[in-house]
Amino acid sequence: MKFLLFTFVGVVHLFSLNSGKAIYKNDISRRTFQEIKEEIARYKDVAKAIINLAVYGKAQNRSYERLALLVDTVGPRPSGSKSLEKAIQIMYQNLQEDGLENVHLEPVKIPHWERGEESAVMLEPRVHKMAILGLGSSIGTPPEGITAEVLVVTSFEELQRRAPEARGKIVVYNQPYVNYSKTVQYRVQGAVEAAKVGALASLIRSVASFSIYSPHTGIQEYQDGVPKIPTACITVEDAEMISRMASRGNRIVIQLKMGAKNYPDADSFNTVAEIIGSKYPEQVVLVSGHLDSWDVGQGAMDDGGGAFVSWEALSLIKDLGLRPKRTLRLVLWTAEEQGGIGGFQYYQLHKANISNYSLVMESDEGTFLPSGLQFTGSEKARAIMEEVMRLLQPVNVTQVFRTGEGTDINFWIQAGVPGASLVDDLYKYFSFHHSHGDTMTVMDPKQMNVAAAVWAVVSYVIADMEEMLPRS
Amino acid sequence: MKFLLFTFVGVVHLFSLNSGKAIYKNDISRRTFQEIKEEIARYKDVAKAIINLAVYGKAQNRSYERLALLVDTVGPRPSGSKSLEKAIQIMYQNLQEDGLENVHLEPVKIPHWERGEESAVMLEPRVHKMAILGLGSSIGTPPEGITAEVLVVTSFEELQRRAPEARGKIVVYNQPYVNYSKTVQYRVQGAVEAAKVGALASLIRSVASFSIYSPHTGIQEYQDGVPKIPTACITVEDAEMISRMASRGNRIVIQLKMGAKNYPDADSFNTVAEIIGSKYPEQVVLVSGHLDSWDVGQGAMDDGGGAFVSWEALSLIKDLGLRPKRTLRLVLWTAEEQGGIGGFQYYQLHKANISNYSLVMESDEGTFLPSGLQFTGSEKARAIMEEVMRLLQPVNVTQVFRTGEGTDINFWIQAGVPGASLVDDLYKYFSFHHSHGDTMTVMDPKQMNVAAAVWAVVSYVIADMEEMLPRS
Ligand SMILES: [Zn+2]
Ligand SMILES: [Zn+2]
Repeated sequence: MKFLLFTFVGVVHLFSLNSGKAIYKNDISRRTFQEIKEEIARYKDVAKAIINLAVYGKAQNRSYERLALLVDTVGPRPSGSKSLEKAIQIMYQNLQEDGLENVHLEPVKIPHWERGEESAVMLEPRVHKMAILGLGSSIGTPPEGITAEVLVVTSFEELQRRAPEARGKIVVYNQPYVNYSKTVQYRVQGAVEAAKVGALASLIRSVASFSIYSPHTGIQEYQDGVPKIPTACITVEDAEMISRMASRGNRIVIQLKMGAKNYPDADSFNTVAEIIGSKYPEQVVLVSGHLDSWDVGQGAMDDGGGAFVSWEALSLIKDLGLRPKRTLRLVLWTAEEQGGIGGFQYYQLHKANISNYSLVMESDEGTFLPSGLQFTGSEKARAIMEEVMRLLQPVNVTQVFRTGEGTDINFWIQAGVPGASLVDDLYKYFSFHHSHGDTMTVMDPKQMNVAAAVWAVVSYVIADMEEMLPRS
Repeated sequence: MKFLLFTFVGVVHLFSLNSGKAIYKNDISRRTFQEIKEEIARYKDVAKAIINLAVYGKAQNRSYERLALLVDTVGPRPSGSKSLEKAIQIMYQNLQEDGLENVHLEPVKIPHWERGEESAVMLEPRVHKMAILGLGSSIGTPPEGITAEVLVVTSFEELQRRAPEARGKIVVYNQPYVNYSKTVQYRVQGAVEAAKVGALASLIRSVASFSIYSPHTGIQEYQDGVPKIPTACITVEDAEMISRMASRGNRIVIQLKMGAKNYPDADSFNTVAEIIGSKYPEQVVLVSGHLDSWDVGQGAMDDGGGAFVSWEALSLIKDLGLRPKRTLRLVLWTAEEQGGIGGFQYYQLHKANISNYSLVMESDEGTFLPSGLQFTGSEKARAIMEEVMRLLQPVNVTQVFRTGEGTDINFWIQAGVPGASLVDDLYKYFSFHHSHGDTMTVMDPKQMNVAAAVWAVVSYVIADMEEMLPRS
C-alpha cells in the first residue's frame, strides 16, 4: 500500500492562517509524515510484546478474572450505593497491590436514587403482570399506585397530535428502535413530554436491540417548570402488545406502583492510578472506563469491561517494564450513569492542564472482540492513529472510525483534545445494556484479552512518541 | 436433475421377505416411482395457488393476526387453567365460523399445577435476588422457605461423585447446553437425582441456547420411592455465577420459596376440525399443533404458531375450494406440555383406525422461516415426500431431513405411521422456549405465511394422492 507523503509543515501553515496559533506544546511542524511513520513503525516489537503477553502469555484472561471477582463479590454498583463505595475501596487497594503509581481517590458528590419496590399490572383488557424497571431519578408513585387508562403513541409527534387524549392517562411510548442515540430520547425525555400534556405517568418501551422480555433501565431527566411524573421502562414485548390492543380498540388500564426515591447526594470518588512519564511527566494519555453501573445485573459489560481493560492496559505496560515518556493515567469514573458526574468533576479539577493532554480514551461500549477504534481529532492526528493501529495487525484490529466518544471524556474532546473509544458489536451491547442480563455471562475472556491489547498498544505508543498528538 | 427410476415392485418385494406383509391399504406395488413422480408433478399449479394465496394473496399475515388476537386476549394457557379453557372455546367457535367441517371437542383429563408465588434469594456470599421459574409438577416449599447451603455440580456424574456432600443442601445444576434433547434431562430428572442423595431442593440452569437473565420453565418428573423435593430453574447467568463462587471456595446459601401446588385433574379437550375426504373419508392426514402453553409469556411461539399454521393449512385449502380425496384433520392438542396428555388420549381413542392414517404432522419447534420438513417413514415414503417438497420450490423450502417428531404424534410414528414436522431456526426457538419471552414479538407474519404454505401443500397433496404413503 502507498502512503501520502505530505509534510505537516504545509498543513500547519495552512491552518495557522485561520487559527493564528498552535495550542499544543511540541511543535511537529518540522517533521514529515514519513518521519512520524518511521517512528511509529519502530514500536512494532513493543506492540508484539504487549500482544503476546495479553493474548497468549501469562496475562491472558487476567482482566476477565479480575472483573469476575469484583462483580461477583460486590454485584451492581449504582450511584450512591454501598456497593459502589465498596468497589471503589477494593479497586483502590487492587491498583496499589498491582504496583501502579500515584494511586489516589478524587472526591465527587454523586446522586443517590433507589428504585425500591416496583410493579405494573395490566388490569384491562386482561390481567397481566408486567416486567418494569423504574428510570433513574424518577419519583415514585403514591403507595396505592397510579391506576389509569393508557394512551399509547409511537413518537413524540403522535403525542403532540393526540395531546387532548393524554390528560389523566398513563402514556405508553412504543417507539421503534432505530439506534441508541436516536431512540434513547424517549427514555430521557418521555416523562417530561407526557407531563406537559397532562399525563399521570409514562411507560417507555425499553431502548434495546433485542429482547427476551427484558426491561432496560437508564437515566431520565425532569425539566424545571414541568410537573414530575413517575416513569419506568417496560419490555419491547409489552409495548408491542399494548399497541396491538389499542389498535383493536381495547381499553387498556394499568396500575403502576413505584417506590423510587431520590436521596441527598452521596460522597464518592474517581479512582486514579498512573505510570508516571519518564520525560514529560506533566503530559498525559488518559485511559478510562466507569466503575459505577445500573442497579440490575452485575455491571459487567457496562462498564466493568471498559474499566478493567483500562486497568489491564497499565498492568501490561508495567509488567513489561515499560515506562512511556508521558504519564499514562488510568481513571475509573464514578456516577457516569447519572450523566458523567465523575467525568465532569475531573474535567473541572484538571482542565487548567488541558494543553498537556495528548489523548483521552474511554471504553464504554463493550469489550467484545473489537473491530477498531473510534477517533475524534484533527486529520493529522487521525493519520497518526491509523499508523499506530497498524501495530495491531497481529490481532487484526486496525480500523480507525469516526467520532471517538465517551460520556466522561467528551468534556475534553469538545475542548479540542483528541479522543478515542473502543468499537465492537453494538447489537450485542444493546441487547444487554442496563438490563438484568448485564452479567459475566456476556463477557468473553479471549475477547477481553484482545481489547486490552489494543488499549495498551495505543495508549503506550501515543504516550511514548516524541510529540503529542496534533490538534486542529 | 436425474432421478432414480427404481420401481417400488422390487423394493416392496425385498421388504416383504423381511416383514411378511404390507399393513397399509392401497397397494402401491404396481406403480413405478416415475408414475408417482408424475402424479406429484401434476400438483404444481395447486401448490402455486396455495403459495400465492398464503404468501402474496389475501390470506397473507392471516395466521399471524389470528394468533395475535387469541394470545393477546387470553394470554398464556397452562394445563388446567381457565385461560386454556377459554382458548379452546374460542377456537371451537373460530373453526366453525371459518366453515370447517366436523368441528368438535374430544374430552381429556389433564393435570392442573400452579406455581403460586415464588422467589429465591442468595444470602451468602452476597444478597442477590434471583430470577426463578418453578418447574411443572414440582411441590412447593414450606411457607418459610428452604434455606440451605448450595452444592453446585455440572453433571449427574459429578453429583454421584460428590454424593456425600449433597445431604441437606440445595443442589444447583450448572450443566452446559449441548442441545435441547440432551440437556433437558437435567430439568426433567434433576430433582429426583438430587433427592436420591439427600438434597432438600434442586435449582437447574435453564435449558436455553441464549439468555438475557431469562429463566425457562418446563415439566419435571418425580419417581416412585424417591422423596419429592421442590425444584425450579434459574438463569444461565446465576448458574454460572454460583459456579464461579464455588470454585473460589465461597460458601453459598440460598433461600428458596415456592408456592407451587398440584390440583386434581381438570377437564379439557382436544379441538378437532376437518375437511372431509371426497373419496376415502375414513383415511386421514393429520395436521396439528398444541393449544396449551406454559404459564409465562404468551405461548405465541410454543405452540401458538404451530397450532395456527395448522389451522391456516385447512383455511387455505378450503378458501381455494379444494377437497382432497382423504380427510384432512386438524387437531389442536391440549396439555402437550405436561407430557403429551392430549396426544396420548387421542391415540387411545383413534388407534383402532391406525391403518387409515397416511401421515401425521405436528409443528412444535417454531414457525419461523422453515428450512424444510423432518420426516420419519420408510425410504419409499421419504422419496415421495422429497417429490412433494419440490412443489415448494417457489418459496425455496424443499429439504427433507431425518426424524419427524412431535410429542403428540410420536405415538403414531412409533406405531409405524409416517410423521412430519416443520424445521426452522432452533437456536432462536430455544432462546425463547418456555420463557417470559415467548410472545408475539418473536413471531414474524411473513415467516408464518411461508410455514403455512409448506404445511398446506404437503398435507393437501398427501391427502389427495391416489395412494396412502407406503409404510415399511
Ligand atoms: Zn456505560
Ligand atoms: Zn411445544
